[in-house]
Amino acid sequence: MGPGRLHALIDGVFAIALTLLVLDLPRPAHATALMHDLQQQWPTYAAYLVSFATLGIIWIEHHGMMGAVRSIDRRLLELTLFFLLFVSIIPWPTALAADYVNAGTRQARDVAILYAATMLMMGLSFAWSWRYLGAHPELVAEPARRAFPAGTRRALLGALAYVVAIAVALASPLASFTLDGVVVVYFALSSSDVPGLIVTSSTHE
Amino acid sequence: MGPGRLHALIDGVFAIALTLLVLDLPRPAHATALMHDLQQQWPTYAAYLVSFATLGIIWIEHHGMMGAVRSIDRRLLELTLFFLLFVSIIPWPTALAADYVNAGTRQARDVAILYAATMLMMGLSFAWSWRYLGAHPELVAEPARRAFPAGTRRALLGALAYVVAIAVALASPLASFTLDGVVVVYFALSSSDVPGLIVTSSTHE
Amino acid sequence: MGPGRLHALIDGVFAIALTLLVLDLPRPAHATALMHDLQQQWPTYAAYLVSFATLGIIWIEHHGMMGAVRSIDRRLLELTLFFLLFVSIIPWPTALAADYVNAGTRQARDVAILYAATMLMMGLSFAWSWRYLGAHPELVAEPARRAFPAGTRRALLGALAYVVAIAVALASPLASFTLDGVVVVYFALSSSDVPGLIVTSSTHE
Amino acid sequence: MGPGRLHALIDGVFAIALTLLVLDLPRPAHATALMHDLQQQWPTYAAYLVSFATLGIIWIEHHGMMGAVRSIDRRLLELTLFFLLFVSIIPWPTALAADYVNAGTRQARDVAILYAATMLMMGLSFAWSWRYLGAHPELVAEPARRAFPAGTRRALLGALAYVVAIAVALASPLASFTLDGVVVVYFALSSSDVPGLIVTSSTHE
Repeated sequence: MGPGRLHALIDGVFAIALTLLVLDLPRPAHATALMHDLQQQWPTYAAYLVSFATLGIIWIEHHGMMGAVRSIDRRLLELTLFFLLFVSIIPWPTALAADYVNAGTRQARDVAILYAATMLMMGLSFAWSWRYLGAHPELVAEPARRAFPAGTRRALLGALAYVVAIAVALASPLASFTLDGVVVVYFALSSSDVPGLIVTSSTHE
Repeated sequence: MGPGRLHALIDGVFAIALTLLVLDLPRPAHATALMHDLQQQWPTYAAYLVSFATLGIIWIEHHGMMGAVRSIDRRLLELTLFFLLFVSIIPWPTALAADYVNAGTRQARDVAILYAATMLMMGLSFAWSWRYLGAHPELVAEPARRAFPAGTRRALLGALAYVVAIAVALASPLASFTLDGVVVVYFALSSSDVPGLIVTSSTHE
Repeated sequence: MGPGRLHALIDGVFAIALTLLVLDLPRPAHATALMHDLQQQWPTYAAYLVSFATLGIIWIEHHGMMGAVRSIDRRLLELTLFFLLFVSIIPWPTALAADYVNAGTRQARDVAILYAATMLMMGLSFAWSWRYLGAHPELVAEPARRAFPAGTRRALLGALAYVVAIAVALASPLASFTLDGVVVVYFALSSSDVPGLIVTSSTHE
Repeated sequence: MGPGRLHALIDGVFAIALTLLVLDLPRPAHATALMHDLQQQWPTYAAYLVSFATLGIIWIEHHGMMGAVRSIDRRLLELTLFFLLFVSIIPWPTALAADYVNAGTRQARDVAILYAATMLMMGLSFAWSWRYLGAHPELVAEPARRAFPAGTRRALLGALAYVVAIAVALASPLASFTLDGVVVVYFALSSSDVPGLIVTSSTHE
């Protein structure tokens, strides 16, 4: 058995996390001012978009890494599940962020820290997988092996950005969330930073 | 790695969106008049059916398009995630539509616009994928390349219908929702409008 | 593209429907008599088990049918989505059944009818797929073609049992639910009734 | 058709169960003391982690077993669905454990028993699959056949640990939950106990 079933579990968890986010979008009770209520809840939509985009970009990056993996061992399975723990938990700080960002300085700060800390753990666990594969080249297809140090650095760069977001939250929760959004945009635009990983592919199914 | 994992993510998001719709079907609290309560909630069932059928038809159309794709690049991954954003969000306007269609003219109008606008965005993001693939024939299997202009037009036709549905909502929310339902029926019946895409296939698994 | 992605959508919807059932298991609020509360809610567990087992057996039967399919066309995609509509809706009558079976004769009767009617529609839509494939032998692998009339009859037999369950509900809701459970057990035990369909298989992945 | 679709259903149910756990993490209503509330709810996070880790390890172990399966029969499908019944139900005792572990001795005891009993049933149903495959070597790839008695013993060892956890719950619910956590750690660290099952693999997708 190759990595096929590990891919299936990863794709399943991402698909569900992406879709569960919608359960926390506001569904106001019967009201006479629906649009007004929805407008007041803009932080919910912002948090939804940032979390959806972060999950999407992380899926693309992880998909790129796994595309170079030719063999799996039990340790890689465990590292992947550790990574999926933080992927699957994201709807939770997202819901809290939406609820608390307008709830007063202290609550907003705590929630901004919680959100960035979750993303930090996701980044660190992703970097751990990159590094493990870099140290076990026998699991990786020949032409992609040299990409793994750059991949590890890229994941650690993301983690570092979330450390900054935690520090910023102490001064301004809103600036911290804005930084979380900027990180997504940066990673979306800098896709070619891991040389040797060829996402483009042309295998028949 | 070929497009297999992208298919897995797409199919996962569609399967979850199709199934999450059921969470919003009314589950009346203990009552003495269950059937009466259920009958009063007919807009919920109508919205459920239209959303389920729309998601189903869109899955079939997208499945047809992806069947012609032989290679993927990072840009196509990002366009697909943008498309999945609107697919995964559909349970939300569906729930609002069910709650508000009977809640007074203004609320019903707002909700009808929100619903059609979500569908419009889904149609536009789908058309964007069609067009990107039409402009990058190297990603597409030879015999299907000529189908992509027609596919783009078909997706834009759907988007146009939802623009009309938004305009109609200003006069009559119920007419707008009815149009949303008519669009599904039209696309279900006009399956042969994209020549060159052969959904019928005979590959052994 | 072969039937692989249709399988993925089917398996996804079944996996989610099977797992969403758990969301309706009772989670009593802080109470001093947890076990007593849980015991009073036995109809919920019974409904959970019958729905889980019915979904499981239907998945096995559908998996057997699809195992003989070598090609798909757009019509088969639409018939399958029609079938999945009733599969994905099952958590809803299951939740109602749990809530209302003890709520008085009339409510219990209505809910028993609703539950059996959902299962009836699932059975009829399944029989429709069997019949369509029987009438289009070009979609089916040679050795399995003769199995399709028997498969259609078996699905119609299930549908007939649910017609009986609807009739029985008029006299006794509990007897109707018991019959729903008996149907599952019958189909689990009579697996060899469709000659020509060989579920046992030995393909390498 | 080989075991591919059975894998898809298994992976789908695990992915959903892993992700649904997050729905029960506490989302306090607007409060002035968010962090204080979250700290008081530590049993919820502990239960979340133990359930996530248990599901993860069980997925890895089951994935190892299925990697040796080359053919499936209807009986194996039914045994797998019986196993998935307990996998998919795990979010339920997890939510109850989180709610009741601090609710008084008797409630905590009942919930600790319920939790360990669910895990016991999962272990027993897993051992049943191991044993069935051990008794039907024609379903298993040649080199892995000798691993099945050891696999059965390993699954029964897990089941035995949960019997002990049930007994311990009578004296101390917290000790019982701690034992549940110890079991996960033990199985994570003792991965080489089933000789002949080679999880490491190098098949191209």
